[in-house]
Amino acid sequence: MTTSPIALTSALARFDAIWSPRIVAQVNDYDVRIAKVAGEHVWHSHDNTDEFFLVLEGELTIALRDGDAERTVVLAQGSVFVVPRGVEHKPSSADGASILMFEPSGTLSVGDRRDSVPDHVDVTTGHRLD
Amino acid sequence: MTTSPIALTSALARFDAIWSPRIVAQVNDYDVRIAKVAGEHVWHSHDNTDEFFLVLEGELTIALRDGDAERTVVLAQGSVFVVPRGVEHKPSSADGASILMFEPSGTLSVGDRRDSVPDHVDVTTGHRLD
Repeated sequence: MTTSPIALTSALARFDAIWSPRIVAQVNDYDVRIAKVAGEHVWHSHDNTDEFFLVLEGELTIALRDGDAERTVVLAQGSVFVVPRGVEHKPSSADGASILMFEPSGTLSVGDRRDSVPDHVDVTTGHRLD
Repeated sequence: MTTSPIALTSALARFDAIWSPRIVAQVNDYDVRIAKVAGEHVWHSHDNTDEFFLVLEGELTIALRDGDAERTVVLAQGSVFVVPRGVEHKPSSADGASILMFEPSGTLSVGDRRDSVPDHVDVTTGHRLD
């Protein structure tokens, strides 16, 4: 449990890995995670949970599939978006970004159904912020 | 459900009321709420849920009671903090702030146990962002 405030910029300065979320807070059985991102994540979906994104720095693109249709949303710094459960999505950031996510503890970073995971994407339920 | 990104600065520009949270996103059965705050809220506690705070602008102070002991945490812009369930707390901001909160949908802004609520504090489970 958080007992003193955490400055997100300081927390982000404590790691370099991309697509490798750190848990900065827990709210009931949910995690607040932060991640540095750059390039492409992987197409995946979460069967049982929505996923919340807030862009702290930079710009995040999220490609979304609905059947055969595909669309893209672009989140500028300070923007929020929720990917509904079951929706295939692929986050990416051409120039790099820092993001905050809110999702149930135990949610896997690459979802329940996914394309093969490239080496630069960490398969994790979130790491402790050391 | 959010279908396009929401810029938090634009969302904040759409209302003036203080201590009157707006729901900007839903994540499963949780709300993401934003609020403008200034002056003092009210001592209260949530029996059944933790409460997450992120300061978007300005500085937020949260007074916390643990039995007879009282302490205060100060959240600068970009800082996060979780008030554990059951802990009496009173947010305040001498110079005003904008904050983001995560909590279960239906969570009352003034908790389950509280001091008498002053007129400038809205008793709400969160308003729609119009």
